Order: sequence, then C-alpha cells, then structure tokens
Amino acid sequence: MEAGIIGGGAMGLLYAAFLSRRHKITLYTNTEEQAAEINEKGAALLKEGVPGIHRFQASAQREYKEELLIITVKQFQLEPVLSVLASLRGRTLLFLQNGMSHVNALDQLTGHSIYTGTVSHGVSRESLREIRLNGIGQTVYAPFPEGMNSRLIQMLDSGDFPFVFQNDWYPVLAQKLLVNACINPLTGLLNVKNGELVENPRYFTMLKQVFEEVFPVLDLEDEHAHWKKVQEICSNTALNTSSMLQDLHNGRNTEIDSMTGYLLGQADEKGMYLPVTAFLYEAIKGLERDCRRRGKA
Amino acid sequence: MEAGIIGGGAMGLLYAAFLSRRHKITLYTNTEEQAAEINEKGAALLKEGVPGIHRFQASAQREYKEELLIITVKQFQLEPVLSVLASLRGRTLLFLQNGMSHVNALDQLTGHSIYTGTVSHGVSRESLREIRLNGIGQTVYAPFPEGMNSRLIQMLDSGDFPFVFQNDWYPVLAQKLLVNACINPLTGLLNVKNGELVENPRYFTMLKQVFEEVFPVLDLEDEHAHWKKVQEICSNTALNTSSMLQDLHNGRNTEIDSMTGYLLGQADEKGMYLPVTAFLYEAIKGLERDCRRRGKA
Repeated sequence: MEAGIIGGGAMGLLYAAFLSRRHKITLYTNTEEQAAEINEKGAALLKEGVPGIHRFQASAQREYKEELLIITVKQFQLEPVLSVLASLRGRTLLFLQNGMSHVNALDQLTGHSIYTGTVSHGVSRESLREIRLNGIGQTVYAPFPEGMNSRLIQMLDSGDFPFVFQNDWYPVLAQKLLVNACINPLTGLLNVKNGELVENPRYFTMLKQVFEEVFPVLDLEDEHAHWKKVQEICSNTALNTSSMLQDLHNGRNTEIDSMTGYLLGQADEKGMYLPVTAFLYEAIKGLERDCRRRGKA
Repeated sequence: MEAGIIGGGAMGLLYAAFLSRRHKITLYTNTEEQAAEINEKGAALLKEGVPGIHRFQASAQREYKEELLIITVKQFQLEPVLSVLASLRGRTLLFLQNGMSHVNALDQLTGHSIYTGTVSHGVSRESLREIRLNGIGQTVYAPFPEGMNSRLIQMLDSGDFPFVFQNDWYPVLAQKLLVNACINPLTGLLNVKNGELVENPRYFTMLKQVFEEVFPVLDLEDEHAHWKKVQEICSNTALNTSSMLQDLHNGRNTEIDSMTGYLLGQADEKGMYLPVTAFLYEAIKGLERDCRRRGKA
C-alpha cells in the first residue's frame, strides 16, 4: 500500500522507518535539505548505538497524493498542513498530535475520513535522518468525530508495530493529555527524567498537585485508576527524557500550549481556577524563552 | 569595643572583616579547620577580584564571652548556639537570620537583651576564609519583643557599614521575609539571577502569583508599595545569584523552611490555602535532595 507521512520529526521518521518495511512510504519533510539527506543516505534508526538503515522516499513538496496520510507534525506546525489538506479530495487522515488543541481545527476540515490517535513509542531525533529508539509502544486511533474503523489504517498494523482501534476518540486523547500534562511540564521545569517524579517524594507531591487540578477539567471517570496510570507511566519510562525536556534542551518550542494551555482554556470556560497549573504553564513558557536565548548566545 | 560574631558563613566573615577595623572581634566558627585558616592567613574580602586581607581572632570554642554577640548562622544551625546562650548571664544579642521561624525560639531565651535584624549586603563565600562582596547594604535591627535601642549596637554603626534602628521588629522581619519568599525560591527553581524575575514576562507573572498568595499571610499594610518594593529589589540586584540558588548549586541545605515553610505554617493556622507557594516549597525541597545527590555522585 502507498502511504504518506507528514512531518520529519522523531515520530515521522519512526513511522516511515517501520512502515516502509511493508509499504511504499513517502515522508513529507519541511525542508529540501532533510529530504535530500534521507533520499541520499536513508534514515538511521539507532538502538543501543547500532544503526539500521531504512530506505523510503522523502519530499519537501506538499503533494500529499496518497490515499492514507499520517500527520505527525506538532500542533503548532499544523496550520500550513491543514490548509493543503483542505484543498484535497477525500483522503484517510490519521492525526497523531499530542494534546487536544488541534481538535477544534479538525472540526473545520471536511470531505475526509479523519482519525485521531495517540502514540506511546519512546524515540528522540538525533539529526535530520537519525532517531534513537528507546522503546516501541503502540498507536491507538479512533474515528473523529465518529465513524467506522479504517481498512487502510488496519493494514498498517503488525505484531512489532501495533495499531489499535478504539470507537471513541475523546477518552483516548483525554487520557493521553492527562498523562502528558502531569509528566511533561514537571520534568521540563525540574530538569529530570520521568522516573524522578515518583522516586523523589517532593516531586511526587508536586505531581499529585498537578494531577488533582487537571483531572476534573477532563470529565474522565475513575480518578483513582487514572492517578495509578500516571504513576505507572513514570515508572515504566523512568529513564526517558520527556519530549518537553528534550525540546527545552534543544531550544525548540514545546507543546505546552496544546497540553497545559489547552487545559487552562477549558478550565476557564468551565469557571475553574487551576493555580498550580497556571504557574507551571508560565514556567515552561519562560523557560522556552530562556532556553532559546541561551541557545543563541 | 569587644564583640563576638557567631557563624563563619559569608555574613559572619563580612561582619568580622568590616567591624574588625574599629573593634576587637572574635569570629566563632563551627570547625577548628576554619578557625585555624583564618588565624593563620586572615580573611580575604574579594571585590572585583582584588583581595583585601582582614585580621581578627577566630575560634571554634563556643565561649561567647563578649558583651555583644552577633548571631549570623542560618536558622537551621541555630539550636546548638541557643543552648549555649541560654546558659550565659545577660548579653546583648543581635540575631540576623533570614525568615521568621527563629522568632519562636527567641521567645524562650530569657535574661538577655535581644535584637533581631535584617541584612541587605550582597556577599557569597568562596572558601573557608574568602568572601566575594557584590555590594554593601545595611543592617536594620529592632528590639525583640520590645525595648530600647542598644548602645553597643549603635557603636558598630559607621558610614560605610550602617546599622539602622527601628522600634518594631515585626514589620522589619516581615517585609524582608516577604521579599525573600518571593525572590529566593523562584530563582532557585528557575535557576536564574534575580533580575530575570522582572525581565522575563513569564517569570514576572509567576513572581506576582507568589506575592499575591504570600502577602495576605503577613498582615502588612499597603500591598501596592510592597509589590513595588519586591520588583525594585529584583532590579537593583539583577545580576545577583540569590542565596537559595547558591545553596542549591553548592549542594547545601537552603533556608526554605524558615521562609516559605514558615509562611505555609502561618497560613495553615489562619485557615488559608496557598497552592502555588506549597508547590514551590516542595520543588525546593526536592531540588535540595537532587542537588545533594548530584554533588555526591
């Protein structure tokens, strides 16, 4: 099958590398430079230091000609992609953004079969064509706002790179957002790996404070189970550097607006006040600014 | 005049160096090693890199034989000092601890003329006998819980190292505590110099959040003037590294308990809830633990 993957970040490269084993993949990058490097040398997937080279087509042209498109760019890079997608005839689109602020934009996108999903792979980008793989998780996806399972996405599923269908998009995205909004900003602020949030009793108290503010905003059920889940993920990914901490270290924009920023907006609409979450939001926005300046200095 | 200075930290060394120009000073250190170094080589005061050597007596014996004793140890080192002071006949005691948690202990100390004070000198310790001076401020002192001005303390006052008397100890300590509780933990958490808190608009919002929670706990008047004062101090000490950030960098205990910890206790007694301040308290306690472990690693 032919599929297009939009976005040459860590996730885009990971999906292209794994899916190109059985499918004809085009990776749509943002720059000619990255596309040229990948077309020349292939993409390298580092696992414990050993590179495996994966070959697929890369292009900086926004042609998006495939029936199935997987959109892996971050929420704040989504706008130019959406404006091209809006002009195309019906495709199957799988959106893999973190957070939930992109959901409003998807409401405006008509004529396509839309799916939203979450990702639990552990991966970081080392260069324009290299990624480091810390662990394979799964892709959970659901029709947006409603619909059937997608035959095309089902074809991507394999034992070592699973795609799991769910009927209802909201709990899928909301649960992931809850976890991200608890773990990511705290690791970014405290400059620690995920496991520290459950190992250091003081950081654990902070994690609980954030969870208790954020949980009621999302209208999810079973607070106790969700709190257990957040702790489990910290433990299971103890040695991982969260994407937000990686972004800060690299002087890049973080996804704070689509996570914590989105939740603060929702809370505001509901007349809820989240003082610690608001404080954390300002901290990450301030650190973004600081890290960019230090990077340039 | 003879005076004893208790504590060989940055402040103790600073007071000994300046006051030994006109008075016979004994510096009471915690270790024999520090006393020996100072007795052998003198104390060095670095200002723009040029050392000035100051000679005075140093001793690790807790004799405390002088009529006037200035206590400069940190709040969490105060207990052993107080138990010696409790056994002495009447002295004039000037306590220069940050925060306010030492005030309860001073209530128990009878038979002395007690004064509490605040310090606005900018100084950091570089070694057992060297301090770096960033700026001379003043010592503001007041009788505790009430009384007259002290003839002995007045004799210490000089144009270039001023001692300023106030009648009422509470506003002196409370205003300093307010400033410290706003600036110190935030600079520690964000790893920034004081000026960043007013220069980075995101950090400024955080500073305001902390101020607004903490101010009502202290029963001070004129919120607007105090908020202006906090900002002024950030600007005037823009390039200073706060003592709390210095302590974290050096893997030492911070004064968080006598500042933020004290305020949280007061708030609790008054039935007030300070979510951001509690969060900040946990952050600094967690960082203390982290910094100690990294220091040892």
